[in-house]
Amino acid sequence: MSEILRVGIAGLGTVGAAVVRLLDAQAADLAARTGKKVVVTGVSARDPARDRGIDLSGATWFSAPTDLARSDKIDLFVELIGGDEGPARESVEAALAAGKSVVTANKALLAKHGIALARLAEAHHGALAFEASVAGGIPIVKTLREGLAGNRIERVYGILNGTCNYILSRMELEGLSFAECLADAQKLGYAEADPTFDIGGFDTAHKLAILASLAFGVKLDAEAISVEGIQDISLADLQAASELGYRVKLLGVAQRTPHGVEQRVHPTMVPLSSAIAQVMGVTNAVTVDADAVNELTLVGPGAGGMATASAVVADIADIARGIRSAPFGLPVDHLASPEKSPMQRHEGGYYIRLAVRNEIGAAAAIATRMAEHGISLESIVQRRACADASVAPVVLVTYATTEASVREALAAIVADGHVADKPQVIRIERE
Amino acid sequence: MSEILRVGIAGLGTVGAAVVRLLDAQAADLAARTGKKVVVTGVSARDPARDRGIDLSGATWFSAPTDLARSDKIDLFVELIGGDEGPARESVEAALAAGKSVVTANKALLAKHGIALARLAEAHHGALAFEASVAGGIPIVKTLREGLAGNRIERVYGILNGTCNYILSRMELEGLSFAECLADAQKLGYAEADPTFDIGGFDTAHKLAILASLAFGVKLDAEAISVEGIQDISLADLQAASELGYRVKLLGVAQRTPHGVEQRVHPTMVPLSSAIAQVMGVTNAVTVDADAVNELTLVGPGAGGMATASAVVADIADIARGIRSAPFGLPVDHLASPEKSPMQRHEGGYYIRLAVRNEIGAAAAIATRMAEHGISLESIVQRRACADASVAPVVLVTYATTEASVREALAAIVADGHVADKPQVIRIERE
Repeated sequence: MSEILRVGIAGLGTVGAAVVRLLDAQAADLAARTGKKVVVTGVSARDPARDRGIDLSGATWFSAPTDLARSDKIDLFVELIGGDEGPARESVEAALAAGKSVVTANKALLAKHGIALARLAEAHHGALAFEASVAGGIPIVKTLREGLAGNRIERVYGILNGTCNYILSRMELEGLSFAECLADAQKLGYAEADPTFDIGGFDTAHKLAILASLAFGVKLDAEAISVEGIQDISLADLQAASELGYRVKLLGVAQRTPHGVEQRVHPTMVPLSSAIAQVMGVTNAVTVDADAVNELTLVGPGAGGMATASAVVADIADIARGIRSAPFGLPVDHLASPEKSPMQRHEGGYYIRLAVRNEIGAAAAIATRMAEHGISLESIVQRRACADASVAPVVLVTYATTEASVREALAAIVADGHVADKPQVIRIERE
Repeated sequence: MSEILRVGIAGLGTVGAAVVRLLDAQAADLAARTGKKVVVTGVSARDPARDRGIDLSGATWFSAPTDLARSDKIDLFVELIGGDEGPARESVEAALAAGKSVVTANKALLAKHGIALARLAEAHHGALAFEASVAGGIPIVKTLREGLAGNRIERVYGILNGTCNYILSRMELEGLSFAECLADAQKLGYAEADPTFDIGGFDTAHKLAILASLAFGVKLDAEAISVEGIQDISLADLQAASELGYRVKLLGVAQRTPHGVEQRVHPTMVPLSSAIAQVMGVTNAVTVDADAVNELTLVGPGAGGMATASAVVADIADIARGIRSAPFGLPVDHLASPEKSPMQRHEGGYYIRLAVRNEIGAAAAIATRMAEHGISLESIVQRRACADASVAPVVLVTYATTEASVREALAAIVADGHVADKPQVIRIERE
């Protein structure tokens, strides 16, 4: 490679334009830090005529991203197109096959094809870097891949979706409903018109698959992740959480268990005193539990053009500096295919909210069912019945038990006919 | 270099022994990650006979650390001796001069001789890595040097001394005096018999000098740092802070100002809602404000054998992987010698606690003096006089003003004879 690193960028939306702007603003500093002048020599975007407020006079325009990816004019290909197939996948594959390095922010692509792409990068001696794909501007990929190299990691978990955290924060702080907060998030551009991908936990799952691979040296397996979203969380749950000393967050959690690596995305009760509970609004946070470092938490912006561009530019700088790590820490052949630990084997505390019919013996019957399934209760709170006097909300908090026991006990309670509505279950995450 | 990275470790205390243990436990993983087998081939410590519970059978013992540093038996020298002169300095210089890479946890050595050592490393093409020197297990050096390469950093600040944070946390949470908490810290091994180095803010200053160099591309200059410790913080201050919506933390702060880089260590009021306010006990935290990433906070263990060893091993792994960054991000010749912004020019809000004599006109005279110096008051709280009815505590909170104005106004107030004791001044740090 010459003393110039020639960069091609495919996709010039908010992030792409911000990358060009940062490379320009930091040009002298980056050259001094890396020993290479970083120059954008090629670009590809849908509308070349659009004014993006950036200077691209030195760059060649390509109408097809795959042509840019393969071009002799670039050493490094930055993919900011998005999508887990089509032009994004084709152009990344083309760049890697041509021996070029690739920087991408595309978590969906990585969650689906990460291992195949890492293999391609290895075969052709290119780098494949994706700091921007998880938690935006937070350098969690570098931290897991390099900063914690001396550790055996036990658990990694985090708030990985700003939209969900914004909604839960506003619901709690302002006493608003889920629907009201979602509508506001959409107005502010935090949530898409079809919010399912964020709200349903799928975006978090993509990011978690990447974190789990880096943390545990295992092959990405988005299919192995149990996913629940926040769509059924009510104000009543947030208020009960607060009274019990918890706060509800949508977490992605990956942890070692005796049965394999457990990967799950779901609304979670975290202790109010924990670092992660303090993270409000669109901010993201990731906590790593490991043998040597004990607990490490990183808090920062999970999205936004500039924050994402910050991560992209850090990857570009690493490649300019000649840093070559295996994309997922270990060479692909060293990545294990872990036994998946199914959700039914999950162990932990549970918050359960039941709409209990006001009948003599109902509470006793419920407590009996829990005991029959070996579940110890840490607390039971029965509220005064509100609108409908025939039903009273009852909140149970269990000591550590298994998902299977909870599900079986609740099935029995429902079958007994004591509850008027579907039980609400939120898992509690210990610190 | 061969496919083996031969490591020599000088200093086998808690951290040194933990490094040997981690290298052993992670041996297979490190070899797969870095492509090199990392082997401890040489050691030096005061008492070779002591049982450290680690296997050093493959290592040669050296009685003099400088002999180990120069030895042909090692590629990489790990300095864990401590001290800013003597064997630590001599052995690091010897290793670098012999073209070897060096990993050190020695902030005092770096604060005093960092630039000379970086120059030596550059001249002989060795690495000089020191992740463990600041904030223990938190990968803040890597984050500043690599993870935020695309950013212009505006401010970096943090809780960098676990001893001080432990004392302040316990004082606040348990209503204990400074002296009681210090005694407990000493009993628990968090504080030395002579605690001046921690309590007086000097340890924080050493770490801040390193962070400022990395963040702003300037030469280390520990002399440029204004340092105040926590020895004069009283329970009354912590309680007043809490009532005002703040918490007192000993912070190291480095920030760009129109007058140059301002570097200061002092007790600070931080908003209770800030991430850094939540950090209690011996935990450390660092926040970086930068143009692209906005705000990034890292929270983790600031000390302890295993956490420090985690950082040392991460540096070893980087060197095994062939990662070579300039020690302070930029080559030494690119590091600026910044104009120092003196503390008198510091701008910010101030908390001022006065023991005001119960005389007619005293409050008015104080308010007049503040106004004369152009200081606007955000709040004034006068407490009921307690034991001594002739004196009442008055707490003032100012809007942003300069250190010089505050000092001059207080000098005038003291000269007026209205206060019975030395005014207490604590700077407020905006989020």
